[in-house]
Amino acid sequence: MSNKLKVVVIGGGSSYTPELIEGLINRHSELPVSELWLVDIEEGREKVNIISELAKRMIKHKGLHIDINVTLDRRLALKDADFVCSQFRAGCLEGRIRDERISLKYGMIGQETNGLGGFANACRTIPVTLQICREMEELCPNAWFLNFTNPSGMVTEAILKYTKIKAIGLCNVPVIMEKGISKILNASEGEFIMQVAGLNHLIWARKVLYQGDDKLDFIISEILKGNDPLVPSNIPPFEWPDDLLRKMGMIPCAYLRYYYMSDDIMKQEQAEANGEGTRGEVVKAIEKRLFDIYKNPALEEKPKELEKRGGQYYSEAACELMASIYNDKRKIMHVNTRNNGTISGLPDDCVVEVSSIITKNGPLPLNVEPFPDDTLRLIQLMKEFETLTVEAAVKGDLVAAKRGLILNPIVNTGTILDEALKETVFENLEHMPQFHWMFDAS
Amino acid sequence: MSNKLKVVVIGGGSSYTPELIEGLINRHSELPVSELWLVDIEEGREKVNIISELAKRMIKHKGLHIDINVTLDRRLALKDADFVCSQFRAGCLEGRIRDERISLKYGMIGQETNGLGGFANACRTIPVTLQICREMEELCPNAWFLNFTNPSGMVTEAILKYTKIKAIGLCNVPVIMEKGISKILNASEGEFIMQVAGLNHLIWARKVLYQGDDKLDFIISEILKGNDPLVPSNIPPFEWPDDLLRKMGMIPCAYLRYYYMSDDIMKQEQAEANGEGTRGEVVKAIEKRLFDIYKNPALEEKPKELEKRGGQYYSEAACELMASIYNDKRKIMHVNTRNNGTISGLPDDCVVEVSSIITKNGPLPLNVEPFPDDTLRLIQLMKEFETLTVEAAVKGDLVAAKRGLILNPIVNTGTILDEALKETVFENLEHMPQFHWMFDAS
Amino acid sequence: MSNKLKVVVIGGGSSYTPELIEGLINRHSELPVSELWLVDIEEGREKVNIISELAKRMIKHKGLHIDINVTLDRRLALKDADFVCSQFRAGCLEGRIRDERISLKYGMIGQETNGLGGFANACRTIPVTLQICREMEELCPNAWFLNFTNPSGMVTEAILKYTKIKAIGLCNVPVIMEKGISKILNASEGEFIMQVAGLNHLIWARKVLYQGDDKLDFIISEILKGNDPLVPSNIPPFEWPDDLLRKMGMIPCAYLRYYYMSDDIMKQEQAEANGEGTRGEVVKAIEKRLFDIYKNPALEEKPKELEKRGGQYYSEAACELMASIYNDKRKIMHVNTRNNGTISGLPDDCVVEVSSIITKNGPLPLNVEPFPDDTLRLIQLMKEFETLTVEAAVKGDLVAAKRGLILNPIVNTGTILDEALKETVFENLEHMPQFHWMFDAS
Amino acid sequence: MSNKLKVVVIGGGSSYTPELIEGLINRHSELPVSELWLVDIEEGREKVNIISELAKRMIKHKGLHIDINVTLDRRLALKDADFVCSQFRAGCLEGRIRDERISLKYGMIGQETNGLGGFANACRTIPVTLQICREMEELCPNAWFLNFTNPSGMVTEAILKYTKIKAIGLCNVPVIMEKGISKILNASEGEFIMQVAGLNHLIWARKVLYQGDDKLDFIISEILKGNDPLVPSNIPPFEWPDDLLRKMGMIPCAYLRYYYMSDDIMKQEQAEANGEGTRGEVVKAIEKRLFDIYKNPALEEKPKELEKRGGQYYSEAACELMASIYNDKRKIMHVNTRNNGTISGLPDDCVVEVSSIITKNGPLPLNVEPFPDDTLRLIQLMKEFETLTVEAAVKGDLVAAKRGLILNPIVNTGTILDEALKETVFENLEHMPQFHWMFDAS
Repeated sequence: MSNKLKVVVIGGGSSYTPELIEGLINRHSELPVSELWLVDIEEGREKVNIISELAKRMIKHKGLHIDINVTLDRRLALKDADFVCSQFRAGCLEGRIRDERISLKYGMIGQETNGLGGFANACRTIPVTLQICREMEELCPNAWFLNFTNPSGMVTEAILKYTKIKAIGLCNVPVIMEKGISKILNASEGEFIMQVAGLNHLIWARKVLYQGDDKLDFIISEILKGNDPLVPSNIPPFEWPDDLLRKMGMIPCAYLRYYYMSDDIMKQEQAEANGEGTRGEVVKAIEKRLFDIYKNPALEEKPKELEKRGGQYYSEAACELMASIYNDKRKIMHVNTRNNGTISGLPDDCVVEVSSIITKNGPLPLNVEPFPDDTLRLIQLMKEFETLTVEAAVKGDLVAAKRGLILNPIVNTGTILDEALKETVFENLEHMPQFHWMFDAS
Repeated sequence: MSNKLKVVVIGGGSSYTPELIEGLINRHSELPVSELWLVDIEEGREKVNIISELAKRMIKHKGLHIDINVTLDRRLALKDADFVCSQFRAGCLEGRIRDERISLKYGMIGQETNGLGGFANACRTIPVTLQICREMEELCPNAWFLNFTNPSGMVTEAILKYTKIKAIGLCNVPVIMEKGISKILNASEGEFIMQVAGLNHLIWARKVLYQGDDKLDFIISEILKGNDPLVPSNIPPFEWPDDLLRKMGMIPCAYLRYYYMSDDIMKQEQAEANGEGTRGEVVKAIEKRLFDIYKNPALEEKPKELEKRGGQYYSEAACELMASIYNDKRKIMHVNTRNNGTISGLPDDCVVEVSSIITKNGPLPLNVEPFPDDTLRLIQLMKEFETLTVEAAVKGDLVAAKRGLILNPIVNTGTILDEALKETVFENLEHMPQFHWMFDAS
Repeated sequence: MSNKLKVVVIGGGSSYTPELIEGLINRHSELPVSELWLVDIEEGREKVNIISELAKRMIKHKGLHIDINVTLDRRLALKDADFVCSQFRAGCLEGRIRDERISLKYGMIGQETNGLGGFANACRTIPVTLQICREMEELCPNAWFLNFTNPSGMVTEAILKYTKIKAIGLCNVPVIMEKGISKILNASEGEFIMQVAGLNHLIWARKVLYQGDDKLDFIISEILKGNDPLVPSNIPPFEWPDDLLRKMGMIPCAYLRYYYMSDDIMKQEQAEANGEGTRGEVVKAIEKRLFDIYKNPALEEKPKELEKRGGQYYSEAACELMASIYNDKRKIMHVNTRNNGTISGLPDDCVVEVSSIITKNGPLPLNVEPFPDDTLRLIQLMKEFETLTVEAAVKGDLVAAKRGLILNPIVNTGTILDEALKETVFENLEHMPQFHWMFDAS
Repeated sequence: MSNKLKVVVIGGGSSYTPELIEGLINRHSELPVSELWLVDIEEGREKVNIISELAKRMIKHKGLHIDINVTLDRRLALKDADFVCSQFRAGCLEGRIRDERISLKYGMIGQETNGLGGFANACRTIPVTLQICREMEELCPNAWFLNFTNPSGMVTEAILKYTKIKAIGLCNVPVIMEKGISKILNASEGEFIMQVAGLNHLIWARKVLYQGDDKLDFIISEILKGNDPLVPSNIPPFEWPDDLLRKMGMIPCAYLRYYYMSDDIMKQEQAEANGEGTRGEVVKAIEKRLFDIYKNPALEEKPKELEKRGGQYYSEAACELMASIYNDKRKIMHVNTRNNGTISGLPDDCVVEVSSIITKNGPLPLNVEPFPDDTLRLIQLMKEFETLTVEAAVKGDLVAAKRGLILNPIVNTGTILDEALKETVFENLEHMPQFHWMFDAS
């Protein structure tokens, strides 16, 4: 890598981008980005322009020199890139909202990375992502692809299985857990080691090493006292089953509620859908407000309001990851990468989310000690769902889709699944070319 | 084993017993039973006497000599037994009905071997079964324990893990599949080999070998044409997803509907519960009618009506199993036995339901070729549920119970599970001494 | 299969063939062979003619009608065959003797299925065998290939990995063990079940089930008393380490001496090589005498002297295997077949030697209970040697050859191995076309 | 840990100790050792006093204050220790020489960590080590035990399996590899990452990450050009098989010669034994010279001659390890630690030698990508040898010893092994109380 870095952001018009800009500004001395390219599609033209103007103001405000480029021509942007950050949303927020509403209609939890919604999101996102990677193979074959587009684990698995691009998936869930633990321990992040393992949105903290001791049990006790700063701000408060958590001896990420507290989540979602709206609908309103703020020509910093958005620390993590690779920092980060034996009992070629030291050659995962049997079974089950979903998304294989969904604990099976699946594909037809065959004959 | 066999039936007052009697009569020349002991408890005194009288008439009618003994003193019966058949129902049909109703109340499928009901049944049945086996260790340590008390897989696993008794679990599901395939192939059972594998109520036919070919795909096609004689008469008609079944290349047992068609089953159960009653309630009415028939002093044969009862072929299988062991017949039967590597990916010491040749030393399982990944994941998940449930049943470990139930696909999790679990234990307290501690403190 | 069977023998001029003829004669009522084709190569013309004449006399003597055909045109023989028996020796006995002498020269045990000799034999035999199978794919795609050409496990693995032919490998080692146990138990073979498992020439008896008990410990005690009828007549007497055998709880086949008693074998081989000759040389002399006997026009039965030859019961086993397949006998036999999970810890697609029930669809292996760790490690090591050797034999891959040989416990490594390997290939160049590249450049 | 560290050296009279002193001196600012205790036994009194005097001179020379204490009372030294370094030699050099001579007498490679000699060394060393650890459980339960007594892997496994002490095993082999690679790359050690994996004296470098590339192939090419600075100075020059090494894509440690070049090593050892003496005998002469040098009251630094001793960098590594733990440095070091899934295919509770980041809580191993099948098989085999040897050493189990030795590729089996084993135990009886039973009855 040269000392004049080119960074490309796919989905540059995302409301998250100002956080990314802030991260690049803060790290400018160690991460000498000279060109930043914001790529978007026609539907995002207005947004990406607002972001671009804000970015320029932020950079100027700090007296730095980073070229900001906006384009709808992805190939132009990708040429000779060093890092490609992916944060686009295939089908926009409308797609997410549709997923949530269809799931709820059929009595299932509606969610953007899991269940029927996760399936739909994967099928919309993976074809576009693979197309980008194929362009990268041609235009910037040595660039790193940093993915934080959801469902991040499946998207990263698709890239690593079907392209030659070096990809790392990122998620803010472990970042938030680490910040929460930092607060509980009253220690800075460098002072302790949190090791997480599992799949994207299905991780547990397995170790919290601090001053020569493993503080797991202490942290669990604090969480059970109601002191739970490990949960993203976009997830409503809830209570873990006390005895279960103490016995397990691991800290579940907030998304494990979908398995441990499925009925509570279902009820909550139904209430929200009948009230303030689904999460997607709420986010849409937040986004609208955010862009109104971004437009303000007086704004020269990332606004406070962005933190409510849910994706907090995503971009922070992305910048830190770029800096760690560029400088061979060997810092421990929590990333989606090829398993290769890290979690025993999963295939070598699948993608897992694990704590790794980040080197100039990418992540070297820390070994994960064997999981308790019951959690391993859950991880294996969900990885099989993910792997079949990736296969369905790449090949348009409906039976693979069903086989995966049948395994997923938050999916209802039978006649209802056939109907929900058909509706999902039909309503997303524009974004799911791989399934056009289903409707061709008619 | 001598040539004067002593057979003991635990739960001798069961309505199934006449089928067992018929089986013993039909096999008398190869299985020289001289004493049959029907054991029951005080609540079953009337029933077991009715059965005993009918049994005597049936035997006399055929001109045979088998001593029929009735007793409430189990130790007396067990002394020097050769075979002990277990078909008792801990908590009687009332227990089953209660399980069904509690499950439905909490929005879950109510079932006697799976989900919350399966958990409850295991917790009622396993302590009694282990007590019987401890008596056998003292009174007839070399006898074979043939279990067809539900949940048969978990009960057999408990015996093999916690006692020294040689136990084999039986189920009529594979027997019915085999008879169905026989009908489709228009071939007698000896002419083809059906190999099944999985767990009790979670099996697939993996091979149907006939005249040098594997007829699996042909049988699947016939089933999908609506010609499905593989389903027990107590299971209402349903349709398998066509594409799924063809791609899988295995024949699922009828109980796999709980995983592949969960929503349809739920709706059907709710309709039944609001109509003719739950399955337990229907069975209760059938049983009442059966005993009225059994009482008839003119009855000298197993009545036709018994076949509606649902457990058809159970006793047939039990008699055939006894005859195969006694005569070292090396016949292929489908039994619950210790895994020991038969199904790859499951612990050695767990119990699986697999086709085995039956020798004088018990079952020698046929090797099971690797399962497709998705079905293996389901089997592993459910085995973990079973193993944790057995642990909970033996040790009264509530966290083990929860960890198991959380994995079970037909269980709702969260607050509702805590409540349903508490109600289940409380309502069964008489039959669940292992959980008394939960209510002791108050 | 029709009721007029065509059987082809590759290597029909082998001195073993009269035993095969006898086996076919004895089973004529259940195995209605109408045509027997003896195939050989130019070098074997005289021998195969002697055998053919003897065969005709034997059949006539019993008043049966089986067409005996001799040909050097393999394709003619293979057309529409039902069973193809392979018992040829690539490179003839001269090849075997050369293997033994080269091994000994470099200080290694010389052996036709193991070590450097096993490697050489595999490299001579596998290319010819694959060629035969390719002809079968065209001329008799549904025929069964019964292999008893050494090294039987590797040859069978090559067929199953690289062709579509249904193949089963046979060896007389388990047959001899079974007959020995029969003698110790004073029971006929049908009365007990011996279960063996491992690889060809690397098996243990894992169970000896007789009258409801496992007699393993008793048999081991008898063997240690010096009563060891389990060893082939071509293997000189030796003594197992007493404590080891008792603790292991399994009966090792005689070939395990190469691992447990390597130094004794080495010394014995060196003494023999300096005395009466290597095993190959001894066999050559025996063969010469046998053919002199076979020529005798008065001879109408398999002569007694054949039993000294070492391969006793091979052909017996082959005939029984054909009869078991043809009649779907479901008899337990000990065969080389695809692993598919039978022995845990080995790849699914490798070939293992395991007790199986023989059906019209071929062998269904009995599950093998987990091996003790140390024996499993030995089996895994040797399977890796075999798999790399097969790869080397098929592809002419010298590095694969070395990687395999380095693992083999009876091979010396380093400079000496490079030299021995080079000499082996050079001396066998006529029979090892896959390695011609090594000498092309010079 | 306090900021006044107490370090104990078991076998303080070792000729290596001056290197350790030098290491502590060089790190004094980051590793504030205030007390150093040199423990030895009566036979080592003179040596340990020489070392102690030299140590005092070295420390004084640098103007530092570290209390140097010498004692034969181990308990006194262990009380409240922070680090216990073990570098004693049970049975002294005489034991090592005896091992070498007995092995050679029976035609086997004589070696202190492998084969018959490794077995003997383990049986002498492990009982004493466990005794030390039991004292530590009482006197300094939180201290770290840093083992560099050979056979380091087996000794560490024994501690982790049979005591509660936190132990890490160290070896200079990976240190020398790393220094060699540093030289080839012309890069400082911090600039690249070498990842090794395997067992003690059985490791491969699996990755050499430098400036964003994996330099493995380049390093292998350099080694094959004869530029091999990765080999310890005590190992005579040799040549790896070119094709093998290139194909393997991993860098073998020098000790892999025992498997890849067994015959060459055997011949070399025999020549040495008949010439300048076995390695033990050579070392004995070196040691004598070293102590003559150490005695010189003018000597105030570690003498240059120590580097010839073979154990170079051992103490360097030990000091660096202490500093890394004390300061939570998270540096990558190569240590013997519990496997826990790090190398797939080995038991969780065995000890492996793997690159790990060193934290205040000890080592966190980096995940090891799956090994090629053939190397995995060798590792599994040797781990089984080690595990059985540890069992034999702890329990005096002769059959476990034999089962282990039979698997070891450098051991001859059969009658000769029985004899060699008996002689080994008899000649070491003073140091092998666990085997006294073998000679008690007579």
